Amino acid sequence: MPPFIPPLSDHSKTVSSLSSERALVSFNVESLSQFLYGENFEKRRHIRGLVEQHPVFSNADKPFLSRERQYVRSLEKAAKLVEMRKQNNWSDDDMMMAMMLIGDWTPQFLHEALFIPTLKTQLTDEQQRIWLPKAQNYEIFGCYVQTEIAHGSNLRKLETTATYIPETDEFEINTPTLNSMKWWPGALAQTSTHCAIYARLILHGKDYGVHPFLLQIRTAGTHAEMPGIELGNLGPKIGFNTVDNGFLRINRVRIPRDQMMMRNSRVTRDGKYEPAKNAKMNYSTMVATRAYIVKNAGSALGQSLTVAIRYSMIRLQGGDRIPSQKGEEVKVIDHGMQRFRLTTSLALSYAMLMTGQVMTDMHQRNLKNMVQGELGLMAVVHATSSGLKALISDLATAHMEDARRSCGGHGYAWCGGMVDVLTTALQDVTVEGENTILHLQTSRWLLKTALQALETKDLSSVPAGLRSALQKGDENIMEQEKSIIVPGQPISGEALIAAFWHRETRVLQEVLARITKDGAGEEAMAKSQVRMVELSRAHGEGMLVRNFYEAIQKEEQAIHRKGGDVTKGYLPVLKMLFELHSIHRLLEQAGDFMEDGYVSRQQKAWCKDRREQLIDLLRYELIGLVDAYDFSDNQLNSAIGRYDGRAYESLYEWAKYGMTLVDKGKNGGVLGFDEVLKDLFAEGRRLNGNPKTLGSKEKKKLF
Amino acid sequence: MPPFIPPLSDHSKTVSSLSSERALVSFNVESLSQFLYGENFEKRRHIRGLVEQHPVFSNADKPFLSRERQYVRSLEKAAKLVEMRKQNNWSDDDMMMAMMLIGDWTPQFLHEALFIPTLKTQLTDEQQRIWLPKAQNYEIFGCYVQTEIAHGSNLRKLETTATYIPETDEFEINTPTLNSMKWWPGALAQTSTHCAIYARLILHGKDYGVHPFLLQIRTAGTHAEMPGIELGNLGPKIGFNTVDNGFLRINRVRIPRDQMMMRNSRVTRDGKYEPAKNAKMNYSTMVATRAYIVKNAGSALGQSLTVAIRYSMIRLQGGDRIPSQKGEEVKVIDHGMQRFRLTTSLALSYAMLMTGQVMTDMHQRNLKNMVQGELGLMAVVHATSSGLKALISDLATAHMEDARRSCGGHGYAWCGGMVDVLTTALQDVTVEGENTILHLQTSRWLLKTALQALETKDLSSVPAGLRSALQKGDENIMEQEKSIIVPGQPISGEALIAAFWHRETRVLQEVLARITKDGAGEEAMAKSQVRMVELSRAHGEGMLVRNFYEAIQKEEQAIHRKGGDVTKGYLPVLKMLFELHSIHRLLEQAGDFMEDGYVSRQQKAWCKDRREQLIDLLRYELIGLVDAYDFSDNQLNSAIGRYDGRAYESLYEWAKYGMTLVDKGKNGGVLGFDEVLKDLFAEGRRLNGNPKTLGSKEKKKLF
Ligand SMILES: Cc1cc2nc3c(=O)[nH]c(=O)nc-3n(C[C@H](O)[C@H](O)[C@H](O)COP(=O)(O)OP(=O)(O)OC[C@H]3O[C@@H](n4cnc5c(N)ncnc54)[C@H](O)[C@@H]3O)c2cc1C
Ligand SMILES: Cc1cc2nc3c(=O)[nH]c(=O)nc-3n(C[C@H](O)[C@H](O)[C@H](O)COP(=O)(O)OP(=O)(O)OC[C@H]3O[C@@H](n4cnc5c(N)ncnc54)[C@H](O)[C@@H]3O)c2cc1C
Repeated sequence: MPPFIPPLSDHSKTVSSLSSERALVSFNVESLSQFLYGENFEKRRHIRGLVEQHPVFSNADKPFLSRERQYVRSLEKAAKLVEMRKQNNWSDDDMMMAMMLIGDWTPQFLHEALFIPTLKTQLTDEQQRIWLPKAQNYEIFGCYVQTEIAHGSNLRKLETTATYIPETDEFEINTPTLNSMKWWPGALAQTSTHCAIYARLILHGKDYGVHPFLLQIRTAGTHAEMPGIELGNLGPKIGFNTVDNGFLRINRVRIPRDQMMMRNSRVTRDGKYEPAKNAKMNYSTMVATRAYIVKNAGSALGQSLTVAIRYSMIRLQGGDRIPSQKGEEVKVIDHGMQRFRLTTSLALSYAMLMTGQVMTDMHQRNLKNMVQGELGLMAVVHATSSGLKALISDLATAHMEDARRSCGGHGYAWCGGMVDVLTTALQDVTVEGENTILHLQTSRWLLKTALQALETKDLSSVPAGLRSALQKGDENIMEQEKSIIVPGQPISGEALIAAFWHRETRVLQEVLARITKDGAGEEAMAKSQVRMVELSRAHGEGMLVRNFYEAIQKEEQAIHRKGGDVTKGYLPVLKMLFELHSIHRLLEQAGDFMEDGYVSRQQKAWCKDRREQLIDLLRYELIGLVDAYDFSDNQLNSAIGRYDGRAYESLYEWAKYGMTLVDKGKNGGVLGFDEVLKDLFAEGRRLNGNPKTLGSKEKKKLF
Repeated sequence: MPPFIPPLSDHSKTVSSLSSERALVSFNVESLSQFLYGENFEKRRHIRGLVEQHPVFSNADKPFLSRERQYVRSLEKAAKLVEMRKQNNWSDDDMMMAMMLIGDWTPQFLHEALFIPTLKTQLTDEQQRIWLPKAQNYEIFGCYVQTEIAHGSNLRKLETTATYIPETDEFEINTPTLNSMKWWPGALAQTSTHCAIYARLILHGKDYGVHPFLLQIRTAGTHAEMPGIELGNLGPKIGFNTVDNGFLRINRVRIPRDQMMMRNSRVTRDGKYEPAKNAKMNYSTMVATRAYIVKNAGSALGQSLTVAIRYSMIRLQGGDRIPSQKGEEVKVIDHGMQRFRLTTSLALSYAMLMTGQVMTDMHQRNLKNMVQGELGLMAVVHATSSGLKALISDLATAHMEDARRSCGGHGYAWCGGMVDVLTTALQDVTVEGENTILHLQTSRWLLKTALQALETKDLSSVPAGLRSALQKGDENIMEQEKSIIVPGQPISGEALIAAFWHRETRVLQEVLARITKDGAGEEAMAKSQVRMVELSRAHGEGMLVRNFYEAIQKEEQAIHRKGGDVTKGYLPVLKMLFELHSIHRLLEQAGDFMEDGYVSRQQKAWCKDRREQLIDLLRYELIGLVDAYDFSDNQLNSAIGRYDGRAYESLYEWAKYGMTLVDKGKNGGVLGFDEVLKDLFAEGRRLNGNPKTLGSKEKKKLF
């Protein structure tokens, strides 16, 4: 087993650089971590501590392994976690946390986070008694099989069928066409023995739409494909290569009727269909997953920034021609552009974490309500989570890529630690609802809500910030509103929140005007997709600002209650991050805020100046703000982002260690030489009239 | 050897879909290709035809190979090209073209495009007589070794030394510290026998700065490291894994004095330094490389768009609830958001190709001038190429990533054909001048030129569009200027170009005001990096617009001259692309254009409407516009972007083919089963009290 991080042979000045940075941070880093992780903080550290005792969880070898060996390594990690769970009596939540803390993705994620939850929400209690223990003890391994090669987003058009055969009380599962082949599910290609599969329910020739079934795909004991089942691996991906995404072709495979997942809809022995009582219940899992993606995106961005900011503090490059530098180079973080990029990204990542928290709370409240039959929150929670997931996965990945670039060459190498986290996060823009489609959903909800409110003159279901403008109705009234940003003064949360509401209202009015012109139905909306996406983005941007503000307010009250000093510690720093984030996002979309004169030229100029001030004020908090994310070196898996800052030694040792893992050349020599280069060079010598192979000594004499 | 593209077993409706699209294109695709590739068009096809006769150039296996095997495969391709060059008597340019047409990158690129050109520009004629034939006939293989682990951008601080030893008439090359180790050069780790290495020249204890030397690193015949040389591979990267980027540590290795590259500076037998006559000559290679990157970025974006647009025409997804669709799904290209993203990106890629062409022409003119001792163009060409390289590599990669996402799930898989081209292009933002640093250079040049002009009252060296505003000097005059965009009418090239000049002038004035306040020296500029980058971007955006316009004007005149009809064929389509590109970029940065009232709210609204109109007008030209890029299926290496549109069959066949290439499990079974899963499942059965391994038949009975 590899070491967690290759050991270093030598000391370097990079170390002192990071510790002197740390000495300047104004707040206690651990207490900020505690705020960020809340009640999970201690448990997180405890579980990570347990995990990192086992060398199997080292990630150091990962970059150098072939895709196949990466996959097997990830299975070893998964199996170890199963063992540790038993030893330590971990709850489901603990297990999920452990999976998140190993700094790697394994097929287990599909089993624990998709398959088992599907069993819990889709199987009847009876069915659960049979299947849950099997899954929980890994007698079977499952995955979630929905997407087909020709259909992902539009589930209405899935083509896999489950036809009821009354004679034998069975369903016949079939993928009748090439296009209906299941394609993409993680853990499908090699790992899973079973799957939750979505297929069109056909009863007596009638199509009842898509429903979930439980299907065994591999034989117990031998793991061979079950009869009628064809499985395969769909090949390498831009990332996430430890997970075996696969395909599944099914040739009329029979399953007993009670392998239809019957918690919601069901089919009786005589083939009668009983529809679900409450179809909306299903949305709740989606909301949870999206809230999870939002949080995770903030955290993935935080991981990238931990590496980029630490590295930028030990990387000396340029600036030596600035007279005051007297020929010495500066830390790249002290180049204005570098600091600008990374500090604004950092503010964004904090905004994401706060929004993720607010969303999770919202989801919990909604869940409680739903259990009591109260579905009022459902629509808004669902719409909110859709657009936010889209906005945030978009922004997070864009800023992760920017952080990668900010590391120069070392950001391009896998050992820099910027590649794996990015390419894994890239799937978030596509999975769990493709981003464009999610924006359209959120927008559709906003439009419908607004239209209905205008019709009924009851604005109570419209988001609060949009109400007054809709009440007034007249677009020109908007143009009289002016931002209350005062040049020369810090910009208040109220001013920023008002600006984002104003912008959203304007966009909403524009889109409303546009679609009502065409009748406001599907047809009209189809013609306005671009504007609808603008609307959902505007809504999401506003939510990021509001949720960040709300989270700070809440924390301020909490500190107050505990008798703490709100002018000290991390709270003032978080407030600066909030102001910076909001100003920066406003400036990035300045056209929207300025076009009706809401933000004036002077106000914009002040925003730019204030942004600069805030970036300067935050300069010596940066290391504290990334340390507070509390990533271990093994999670970061980065030569340049290590806690101790010893980047160059680590790069070197890691490369040498990696060379021990990869294939050698044919006869044990330099890779490529015996295979190709030898002949190439010999032919070159022949052409040049130097047929003899020269040793280095003789050669030297020649020149 | 693998087939070029896995053969398909079945026919599908996707085929007819693309051919019916093709039938609607208004212009002759081949003539547009001819315009795009100019005189190279025929040669390109000819060489590609030769290449694609040899199965060694198939790229179909690439995604499935480990990094090591990818590298060896790429060497096989390189060796074959050397052989073909001889057979076909290819010129240097032909060889370069062939390398670009194989749809893969090999270490040969470093040898042909960096090492040999360095020999040509840095070796004396005498030295060239010795070394060039060796390199050209591949008796030796070389790379370009400049970057160190601790220094890339700031070459002034490289630490590798070349100390002259008068006693033996040799240089001693040394990397005295860990930080000075050479790190990153492509083809260094395994392939090269020699390198052009940059080291500080030390003569009699005095440091003369960084100079190029020729160093042998591997022994002829055995390819072992030369004494005192330590070589290694720096490991996997986000892309470009066919090339062996490596590191090099040197322990006091001696080379004869005449392995200093002495075309420019030289050292005499008695250790006297003779500086270069014309140091600027060196810039010319940099300009050429950047012009090359600009063109290549446009082409890489074109490749991504070829795949994304073709795929979007065969992918049916959603839209079935729009009443007029009567339950049928639409091609995703007909979803407004999809069409918007891809059409604006397509306009951008055309803008890039045009700008690349204009830049190459500029470089050629400059080269001619320089040979005649005329250095007037040098500064502007250099500055222009810097900022443009930065802007364009940034935009191209962002839009390639967006195109990847627009393919949904299949964009995430390597076989989609969107991954390799993107991750390779990602290096362009870092190499050949890191983008931020290049923007700062361009900006510095703009500022210095403007300051000097204001001082001397001679504006002749200032870019034309900036002159009048600088002449007037007063910022308020700017606010009286208004855009001549007329709502309701197509937007003229003049109006668009004027808008970009106006914006640039304003940004220039702001930055000037800011830095002159602080004395306008290095110190002042260091404080204004963010604004300086804005300025260079504004300059580059304007150039994209102007160069696109200029290229169209030129072509219009050419058609006129030939007596052609300029209202027919591809010219009107290119004009629409130009208008779309310029409007879209303006809207993307609307805040800048609106803040001083230059563009009014009404004008902005019209721009949005006009953009939509243009996107609609271009709808049935899209397939023609991407076909005109003329990528072969082997270059695209994409299951979903094939010329014939047979995406699903291709995905399936390709995945099955790939499974024949990858490692099997331990005992030839399912990968991961014997290694890990078997025990995991057995323990699960034990826990659940099912110790016996059940066959599928028995198992079935149980439920
Ligand atoms: C890494 C990874 C893991 C996955 N894991 C699983 C898994 O475990 N189980 C599983 O079942 N699936 C899985 N998937 C599949 C995933 O759920 C789908 O890829 C996803 O739902 C997107 O659907 P699609 O690929 O069909 O994209 P499409 O919907 O085909 O999207 C293509 C383009 O069309 C546009 N478009 C489509 N419809 C519309 C519309 N109505 N209006 C406007 N634009 C539209 C989209 O915006 C997009 O730009 C995985 C995918 C990936 C990449
Ligand atoms: C795929 C690949 C291939 C390569 N091939 C070769 C090769 O063949 N031969 C070779 O010699 N090298 C090669 N390189 C190295 C490459 O030339 C350098 O990585 C590149 O020059 C950038 O330098 P850097 O890595 O030192 O980045 P840095 O300069 O360290 O950049 C890090 C960050 O600091 C910022 N920064 C640095 N200086 C300043 C400043 N003065 N002002 C403001 N910001 C600043 C940058 O903007 C960046 O965000 C290769 C690199 C890659 C990734």
